[in-house]
Amino acid sequence: MPKVAESTIRRLSLYLRFLEEFEEQGIETVSSEALAGRGGTTSAQVRKDLSFFGSFGKRGLGYSVPELAGRLRTIIGLGQRYPLALIGAGKIGSALVQHRGFAERGFDIVAIFDRDPEKIGQSWNGHPVRDISDLEAALAAEPVEIAVITTPADAAQDVADRLVAIGVKAILNFAPVQLDVPDVVVVKTVNLALELEVLSYALTNR
Amino acid sequence: MPKVAESTIRRLSLYLRFLEEFEEQGIETVSSEALAGRGGTTSAQVRKDLSFFGSFGKRGLGYSVPELAGRLRTIIGLGQRYPLALIGAGKIGSALVQHRGFAERGFDIVAIFDRDPEKIGQSWNGHPVRDISDLEAALAAEPVEIAVITTPADAAQDVADRLVAIGVKAILNFAPVQLDVPDVVVVKTVNLALELEVLSYALTNR
Repeated sequence: MPKVAESTIRRLSLYLRFLEEFEEQGIETVSSEALAGRGGTTSAQVRKDLSFFGSFGKRGLGYSVPELAGRLRTIIGLGQRYPLALIGAGKIGSALVQHRGFAERGFDIVAIFDRDPEKIGQSWNGHPVRDISDLEAALAAEPVEIAVITTPADAAQDVADRLVAIGVKAILNFAPVQLDVPDVVVVKTVNLALELEVLSYALTNR
Repeated sequence: MPKVAESTIRRLSLYLRFLEEFEEQGIETVSSEALAGRGGTTSAQVRKDLSFFGSFGKRGLGYSVPELAGRLRTIIGLGQRYPLALIGAGKIGSALVQHRGFAERGFDIVAIFDRDPEKIGQSWNGHPVRDISDLEAALAAEPVEIAVITTPADAAQDVADRLVAIGVKAILNFAPVQLDVPDVVVVKTVNLALELEVLSYALTNR
Protein backbone atom coordinates (compact mmCIF):
# COMPACT_ATOMS: atom_id res chain seq x y z
CA MET A 1 0.00 0.00 0.00
CA PRO A 2 1.23 3.50 -0.73
CA LYS A 3 1.83 6.01 2.03
CA VAL A 4 -1.41 7.95 2.00
CA ALA A 5 -2.23 11.13 3.92
CA GLU A 6 -4.74 10.88 6.75
CA SER A 7 -6.86 13.53 5.02
CA THR A 8 -7.25 11.12 2.09
CA ILE A 9 -8.34 8.29 4.38
CA ARG A 10 -10.89 10.59 6.00
CA ARG A 11 -12.33 11.45 2.60
CA LEU A 12 -12.48 7.77 1.64
CA SER A 13 -14.51 7.15 4.81
CA LEU A 14 -16.88 9.94 3.81
CA TYR A 15 -17.19 8.66 0.25
CA LEU A 16 -18.09 5.24 1.67
CA ARG A 17 -20.85 6.81 3.77
CA PHE A 18 -22.27 8.58 0.72
CA LEU A 19 -22.07 5.39 -1.34
CA GLU A 20 -23.99 3.56 1.36
CA GLU A 21 -26.66 6.26 1.25
CA PHE A 22 -26.81 5.88 -2.53
CA GLU A 23 -27.10 2.09 -2.09
CA GLU A 24 -30.05 2.55 0.27
CA GLN A 25 -31.71 4.73 -2.35
CA GLY A 26 -31.17 2.05 -4.99
CA ILE A 27 -28.71 4.15 -7.01
CA GLU A 28 -26.41 1.80 -8.94
CA THR A 29 -23.82 4.07 -10.51
CA VAL A 30 -22.39 7.40 -9.43
CA SER A 31 -20.06 9.94 -11.04
CA SER A 32 -17.02 11.42 -9.33
CA GLU A 33 -18.87 14.76 -9.60
CA ALA A 34 -21.81 13.42 -7.56
CA LEU A 35 -19.49 11.96 -4.92
CA ALA A 36 -17.56 15.21 -4.81
CA GLY A 37 -20.69 17.35 -4.51
CA ARG A 38 -21.94 15.28 -1.61
CA GLY A 39 -18.60 15.59 0.17
CA GLY A 40 -17.86 19.24 -0.47
CA THR A 41 -14.83 18.47 -2.59
CA THR A 42 -14.01 18.31 -6.32
CA SER A 43 -14.28 15.45 -8.82
CA ALA A 44 -10.53 15.76 -9.44
CA GLN A 45 -9.94 15.22 -5.72
CA VAL A 46 -12.21 12.15 -5.71
CA ARG A 47 -10.32 10.65 -8.65
CA LYS A 48 -6.97 11.45 -7.07
CA ASP A 49 -7.98 9.95 -3.71
CA LEU A 50 -9.11 6.73 -5.39
CA SER A 51 -6.09 6.55 -7.71
CA PHE A 52 -3.82 5.63 -4.79
CA PHE A 53 -5.60 2.30 -4.56
CA GLY A 54 -5.94 1.21 -8.18
CA SER A 55 -8.36 1.67 -10.99
CA PHE A 56 -12.02 2.35 -10.30
CA GLY A 57 -14.99 3.06 -12.49
CA LYS A 58 -15.34 3.33 -16.25
CA ARG A 59 -14.73 6.56 -18.11
CA GLY A 60 -18.10 8.05 -18.99
CA LEU A 61 -20.02 5.49 -16.93
CA GLY A 62 -18.95 6.44 -13.44
CA TYR A 63 -18.50 4.07 -10.55
CA SER A 64 -20.61 1.06 -9.66
CA VAL A 65 -21.98 2.01 -6.23
CA PRO A 66 -21.86 -1.49 -4.63
CA GLU A 67 -18.46 -2.29 -6.16
CA LEU A 68 -16.81 0.96 -5.06
CA ALA A 69 -18.41 0.68 -1.61
CA GLY A 70 -17.06 -2.85 -1.28
CA ARG A 71 -13.57 -1.87 -2.36
CA LEU A 72 -13.52 1.12 0.00
CA ARG A 73 -14.60 -1.12 2.89
CA THR A 74 -11.67 -3.43 2.10
CA ILE A 75 -9.22 -0.53 1.79
CA ILE A 76 -10.31 1.04 5.09
CA GLY A 77 -10.27 -2.34 6.80
CA LEU A 78 -14.00 -2.52 7.46
CA GLY A 79 -14.40 -6.07 6.13
CA GLN A 80 -14.22 -7.38 9.70
CA ARG A 81 -15.46 -6.53 13.19
CA TYR A 82 -13.05 -5.05 15.72
CA PRO A 83 -13.40 -5.78 19.43
CA LEU A 84 -12.39 -2.69 21.43
CA ALA A 85 -11.34 -2.14 25.02
CA LEU A 86 -12.41 1.10 26.71
CA ILE A 87 -10.37 2.41 29.61
CA GLY A 88 -12.08 5.08 31.69
CA ALA A 89 -15.74 4.63 32.62
CA GLY A 90 -16.55 8.33 32.84
CA LYS A 91 -19.04 10.49 30.98
CA ILE A 92 -17.32 10.34 27.62
CA GLY A 93 -16.71 6.62 28.03
CA SER A 94 -20.40 6.12 28.78
CA ALA A 95 -21.39 8.05 25.65
CA LEU A 96 -18.99 6.01 23.52
CA VAL A 97 -20.21 2.65 24.87
CA GLN A 98 -23.71 3.60 23.76
CA HIS A 99 -22.64 5.28 20.52
CA ARG A 100 -24.50 3.46 17.75
CA GLY A 101 -22.11 4.77 15.11
CA PHE A 102 -19.32 2.52 16.41
CA ALA A 103 -21.19 -0.79 16.11
CA GLU A 104 -22.59 0.28 12.73
CA ARG A 105 -19.03 0.53 11.38
CA GLY A 106 -17.89 -2.74 12.99
CA PHE A 107 -16.36 -1.46 16.22
CA ASP A 108 -17.62 -3.28 19.34
CA ILE A 109 -16.60 -2.16 22.81
CA VAL A 110 -16.29 -5.53 24.55
CA ALA A 111 -14.24 -4.71 27.64
CA ILE A 112 -14.49 -1.70 29.95
CA PHE A 113 -12.06 -0.78 32.71
CA ASP A 114 -11.92 1.81 35.48
CA ARG A 115 -10.18 2.28 38.81
CA ASP A 116 -13.20 3.67 40.69
CA PRO A 117 -14.64 1.01 43.08
CA GLU A 118 -18.06 2.66 42.64
CA LYS A 119 -17.99 1.88 38.93
CA ILE A 120 -16.31 -1.53 38.97
CA GLY A 121 -18.98 -4.21 38.66
CA GLN A 122 -21.55 -1.96 36.96
CA SER A 123 -22.98 -3.33 33.73
CA TRP A 124 -22.59 -1.01 30.75
CA ASN A 125 -24.38 -2.09 27.62
CA GLY A 126 -24.17 -5.68 28.82
CA HIS A 127 -20.47 -5.52 29.66
CA PRO A 128 -19.14 -5.35 33.22
CA VAL A 129 -16.91 -2.44 34.19
CA ARG A 130 -13.76 -4.23 35.36
CA ASP A 131 -10.99 -3.24 37.71
CA ILE A 132 -8.12 -1.60 35.80
CA SER A 133 -5.75 -3.81 37.79
CA ASP A 134 -7.22 -6.76 35.82
CA LEU A 135 -6.40 -5.12 32.46
CA GLU A 136 -3.57 -7.46 31.48
CA ALA A 137 -5.36 -10.66 32.54
CA ALA A 138 -8.66 -9.71 30.93
CA LEU A 139 -7.11 -8.68 27.63
CA ALA A 140 -4.92 -11.79 27.58
CA ALA A 141 -8.12 -13.85 27.66
CA GLU A 142 -9.91 -11.60 25.18
CA PRO A 143 -7.32 -9.77 23.06
CA VAL A 144 -8.06 -6.49 21.28
CA GLU A 145 -6.00 -4.59 18.73
CA ILE A 146 -7.72 -1.26 19.33
CA ALA A 147 -8.29 0.49 22.66
CA VAL A 148 -10.06 3.72 23.55
CA ILE A 149 -8.65 5.82 26.40
CA THR A 150 -11.12 8.10 28.18
CA THR A 151 -9.25 8.47 31.46
CA PRO A 152 -8.22 11.78 33.03
CA ALA A 153 -5.07 13.29 31.56
CA ASP A 154 -2.79 12.18 34.39
CA ALA A 155 -3.66 8.49 34.01
CA ALA A 156 -3.53 8.23 30.23
CA GLN A 157 0.18 7.63 29.62
CA ASP A 158 0.37 4.84 32.18
CA VAL A 159 -2.69 3.19 30.63
CA ALA A 160 -1.18 3.57 27.15
CA ASP A 161 2.09 1.97 28.30
CA ARG A 162 0.19 -1.00 29.71
CA LEU A 163 -1.89 -1.39 26.55
CA VAL A 164 1.19 -1.28 24.34
CA ALA A 165 2.93 -3.84 26.56
CA ILE A 166 0.14 -6.36 25.97
CA GLY A 167 0.11 -5.87 22.22
CA VAL A 168 -2.54 -3.21 21.53
CA LYS A 169 -1.70 -1.74 18.13
CA ALA A 170 -4.02 1.28 17.87
CA ILE A 171 -5.34 3.77 20.42
CA LEU A 172 -8.11 6.32 20.16
CA ASN A 173 -7.26 8.81 22.90
CA PHE A 174 -9.73 11.28 24.41
CA ALA A 175 -7.47 12.31 27.29
CA PRO A 176 -6.11 15.83 26.70
CA VAL A 177 -2.47 14.75 26.50
CA GLN A 178 -0.05 13.72 23.79
CA LEU A 179 0.68 10.03 24.30
CA ASP A 180 4.19 8.73 23.83
CA VAL A 181 4.07 5.28 22.18
CA PRO A 182 6.39 3.21 19.96
CA ASP A 183 6.23 3.89 16.21
CA VAL A 184 4.44 0.61 15.52
CA VAL A 185 1.44 1.78 17.54
CA VAL A 186 -1.00 4.21 15.95
CA VAL A 187 -2.59 6.88 18.15
CA LYS A 188 -5.40 9.25 17.23
CA THR A 189 -6.13 11.91 19.81
CA VAL A 190 -9.53 13.57 19.88
CA ASN A 191 -9.33 16.76 21.89
CA LEU A 192 -12.82 18.18 22.11
CA ALA A 193 -11.82 21.57 23.52
CA LEU A 194 -9.27 21.92 20.73
CA GLU A 195 -12.09 21.55 18.17
CA LEU A 196 -13.78 24.54 19.79
CA GLU A 197 -10.51 26.46 19.66
CA VAL A 198 -10.43 26.00 15.88
CA LEU A 199 -13.84 27.73 15.91
CA SER A 200 -12.78 30.51 18.29
CA TYR A 201 -9.76 31.13 16.05
CA ALA A 202 -12.04 31.40 13.02
CA LEU A 203 -14.41 33.78 14.84
CA THR A 204 -11.54 35.91 16.08
CA ASN A 205 -9.80 36.15 12.71
CA ARG A 206 -12.78 36.73 10.42
CA MET B 1 -4.55 37.90 9.61
CA PRO B 2 -3.01 35.55 7.08
CA LYS B 3 -4.89 32.53 5.78
CA VAL B 4 -3.53 29.79 7.99
CA ALA B 5 -4.09 26.04 7.67
CA GLU B 6 -6.21 24.36 10.32
CA SER B 7 -3.31 22.03 11.10
CA THR B 8 -1.30 25.11 12.12
CA ILE B 9 -4.08 26.32 14.42
CA ARG B 10 -4.27 22.88 16.03
CA ARG B 11 -0.56 22.95 16.71
CA LEU B 12 -0.82 26.47 18.20
CA SER B 13 -3.48 25.14 20.57
CA LEU B 14 -1.14 22.32 21.59
CA TYR B 15 1.79 24.70 22.06
CA LEU B 16 -0.42 26.81 24.32
CA ARG B 17 -1.24 23.76 26.44
CA PHE B 18 2.44 22.92 26.80
CA LEU B 19 3.28 26.53 27.66
CA GLU B 20 0.63 26.47 30.38
CA GLU B 21 2.21 23.30 31.78
CA PHE B 22 5.60 25.04 31.73
CA GLU B 23 4.03 28.04 33.50
CA GLU B 24 2.68 25.78 36.24
CA GLN B 25 6.17 24.35 36.69
CA GLY B 26 7.61 27.85 37.01
CA ILE B 27 9.60 27.61 33.77
CA GLU B 28 10.09 31.13 32.37
CA THR B 29 11.68 30.60 28.98
CA VAL B 30 11.46 27.77 26.49
CA SER B 31 13.25 26.95 23.24
CA SER B 32 11.47 26.00 20.02
CA GLU B 33 13.20 22.61 20.41
CA ALA B 34 11.55 22.05 23.80
CA LEU B 35 8.13 23.06 22.47
CA ALA B 36 8.65 20.82 19.45
CA GLY B 37 9.77 17.84 21.52
CA ARG B 38 6.72 18.14 23.75
CA GLY B 39 4.43 18.27 20.71
CA GLY B 40 6.01 15.58 18.57
CA THR B 41 7.06 18.06 15.88
CA THR B 42 10.25 19.88 14.87
CA SER B 43 11.67 23.20 15.99
CA ALA B 44 11.52 24.41 12.37
CA GLN B 45 7.79 23.65 12.36
CA VAL B 46 7.29 25.55 15.64
CA ARG B 47 9.11 28.60 14.23
CA LYS B 48 7.18 28.39 10.97
CA ASP B 49 3.82 28.08 12.77
CA LEU B 50 4.58 31.14 14.88
CA SER B 51 5.98 33.16 11.97
CA PHE B 52 2.50 33.59 10.50
CA PHE B 53 1.61 35.78 13.45
CA GLY B 54 4.65 38.00 13.86
CA SER B 55 7.92 37.86 15.65
CA PHE B 56 8.34 35.85 18.82
CA GLY B 57 11.25 35.10 21.09
CA LYS B 58 14.87 36.18 20.98
CA ARG B 59 17.53 34.30 19.04
CA GLY B 60 19.54 32.22 21.48
CA LEU B 61 17.23 33.06 24.39
CA GLY B 62 14.08 31.25 23.33
CA TYR B 63 10.55 32.34 24.10
CA SER B 64 9.23 33.92 27.25
CA VAL B 65 6.69 31.36 28.45
CA PRO B 66 4.07 33.81 29.82
CA GLU B 67 4.46 36.19 26.87
CA LEU B 68 4.12 33.50 24.21
CA ALA B 69 1.21 31.90 26.09
CA GLY B 70 -0.56 35.27 26.23
CA ARG B 71 -0.01 35.97 22.56
CA LEU B 72 -1.23 32.50 21.56
CA ARG B 73 -4.37 32.99 23.68
CA THR B 74 -5.03 36.24 21.81
CA ILE B 75 -4.36 34.64 18.41
CA ILE B 76 -6.64 31.67 19.09
CA GLY B 77 -9.32 33.94 20.52
CA LEU B 78 -9.16 32.64 24.06
CA GLY B 79 -9.00 36.07 25.68
CA GLN B 80 -12.77 35.91 26.32
CA ARG B 81 -15.42 33.44 27.42
CA TYR B 82 -17.80 31.96 24.85
CA PRO B 83 -21.38 31.06 25.78
CA LEU B 84 -22.44 27.95 23.84
CA ALA B 85 -25.80 26.44 22.94
CA LEU B 86 -26.06 22.65 22.82
CA ILE B 87 -28.74 21.05 20.70
CA GLY B 88 -29.41 17.39 21.40
CA ALA B 89 -29.60 16.22 25.02
CA GLY B 90 -28.43 12.67 24.36
CA LYS B 91 -25.47 10.73 25.66
CA ILE B 92 -22.80 12.71 23.86
CA GLY B 93 -24.55 15.97 24.76
CA SER B 94 -24.55 14.91 28.39
CA ALA B 95 -20.84 14.12 28.30
CA LEU B 96 -20.08 17.49 26.70
CA VAL B 97 -22.14 19.47 29.22
CA GLN B 98 -20.04 17.94 31.98
CA HIS B 99 -16.75 18.07 30.09
CA ARG B 100 -14.39 20.11 32.26
CA GLY B 101 -12.06 20.77 29.35
CA PHE B 102 -14.60 23.12 27.77
CA ALA B 103 -14.98 25.49 30.72
CA GLU B 104 -11.23 25.39 31.32
CA ARG B 105 -10.69 26.85 27.84
CA GLY B 106 -13.47 29.45 28.17
CA PHE B 107 -16.37 27.60 26.56
CA ASP B 108 -19.54 27.55 28.68
CA ILE B 109 -22.61 25.58 27.61
CA VAL B 110 -25.37 27.94 28.78
CA ALA B 111 -28.40 26.70 26.83
CA ILE B 112 -29.49 23.12 26.09
CA PHE B 113 -32.27 22.07 23.73
CA ASP B 114 -34.00 18.81 22.84
CA ARG B 115 -37.29 17.68 21.34
CA ASP B 116 -37.88 14.78 23.74
CA PRO B 117 -40.63 15.68 26.29
CA GLU B 118 -38.94 13.32 28.76
CA LYS B 119 -35.80 15.43 28.69
CA ILE B 120 -37.32 18.91 28.45
CA GLY B 121 -37.32 20.47 31.91
CA GLN B 122 -34.46 18.36 33.26
CA SER B 123 -31.62 20.31 34.82
CA TRP B 124 -28.22 19.59 33.33
CA ASN B 125 -25.28 21.13 35.14
CA GLY B 126 -27.62 23.85 36.42
CA HIS B 127 -29.16 24.59 33.03
CA PRO B 128 -32.67 23.51 32.04
CA VAL B 129 -33.10 21.35 28.95
CA ARG B 130 -35.45 23.48 26.84
CA ASP B 131 -37.88 22.63 24.11
CA ILE B 132 -36.24 22.87 20.69
CA SER B 133 -39.30 24.81 19.54
CA ASP B 134 -38.13 27.62 21.85
CA LEU B 135 -34.70 27.76 20.18
CA GLU B 136 -35.17 31.09 18.41
CA ALA B 137 -36.80 32.86 21.37
CA ALA B 138 -34.29 31.56 23.90
CA LEU B 139 -31.24 32.46 21.81
CA ALA B 140 -32.70 35.88 21.00
CA ALA B 141 -32.74 36.56 24.74
CA GLU B 142 -29.33 35.00 25.31
CA PRO B 143 -27.36 35.07 22.03
CA VAL B 144 -24.49 32.71 21.29
CA GLU B 145 -22.00 32.72 18.45
CA ILE B 146 -21.08 29.04 18.80
CA ALA B 147 -23.45 26.07 18.93
CA VAL B 148 -22.82 22.37 19.39
CA ILE B 149 -25.06 19.91 17.52
CA THR B 150 -25.41 16.45 19.06
CA THR B 151 -28.72 15.48 17.47
CA PRO B 152 -29.31 12.35 15.38
CA ALA B 153 -28.18 12.64 11.77
CA ASP B 154 -31.64 13.26 10.34
CA ALA B 155 -32.30 16.30 12.55
CA ALA B 156 -28.93 18.02 12.20
CA GLN B 157 -29.37 19.99 8.96
CA ASP B 158 -32.69 21.49 10.08
CA VAL B 159 -31.13 22.51 13.40
CA ALA B 160 -28.14 24.00 11.57
CA ASP B 161 -30.44 26.02 9.29
CA ARG B 162 -32.29 27.42 12.30
CA LEU B 163 -29.05 28.28 14.10
CA VAL B 164 -27.65 30.04 11.04
CA ALA B 165 -30.91 31.99 10.63
CA ILE B 166 -30.57 33.47 14.11
CA GLY B 167 -26.96 34.46 13.63
CA VAL B 168 -24.89 31.59 14.98
CA LYS B 169 -21.46 31.88 13.37
CA ALA B 170 -19.74 28.62 14.30
CA ILE B 171 -20.97 25.06 14.77
CA LEU B 172 -19.29 22.06 16.30
CA ASN B 173 -21.19 19.13 14.79
CA PHE B 174 -21.22 15.61 16.24
CA ALA B 175 -24.04 14.35 13.99
CA PRO B 176 -22.65 11.98 11.34
CA VAL B 177 -23.61 14.18 8.40
CA GLN B 178 -21.98 16.91 6.35
CA LEU B 179 -23.81 20.13 7.13
CA ASP B 180 -24.57 22.59 4.37
CA VAL B 181 -24.17 26.16 5.67
CA PRO B 182 -23.30 29.55 4.16
CA ASP B 183 -19.61 30.36 3.73
CA VAL B 184 -19.65 32.87 6.59
CA VAL B 185 -20.47 30.10 9.05
CA VAL B 186 -17.67 27.82 10.24
CA VAL B 187 -18.48 24.16 10.85
CA LYS B 188 -16.24 21.55 12.43
CA THR B 189 -17.59 18.01 12.29
CA VAL B 190 -16.36 15.44 14.78
CA ASN B 191 -17.19 11.98 13.51
CA LEU B 192 -16.14 9.54 16.20
CA ALA B 193 -16.55 6.40 14.09
CA LEU B 194 -14.43 7.99 11.38
CA GLU B 195 -11.59 8.38 13.90
CA LEU B 196 -11.71 4.63 14.43
CA GLU B 197 -11.69 4.08 10.68
CA VAL B 198 -8.39 5.95 10.47
CA LEU B 199 -7.10 3.35 12.94
CA SER B 200 -8.60 0.37 11.10
CA TYR B 201 -7.01 1.67 7.90
CA ALA B 202 -3.64 1.86 9.64
CA LEU B 203 -3.99 -1.65 11.06
CA THR B 204 -5.07 -3.07 7.71
CA ASN B 205 -2.29 -1.39 5.74
CA ARG B 206 0.65 -1.90 8.09
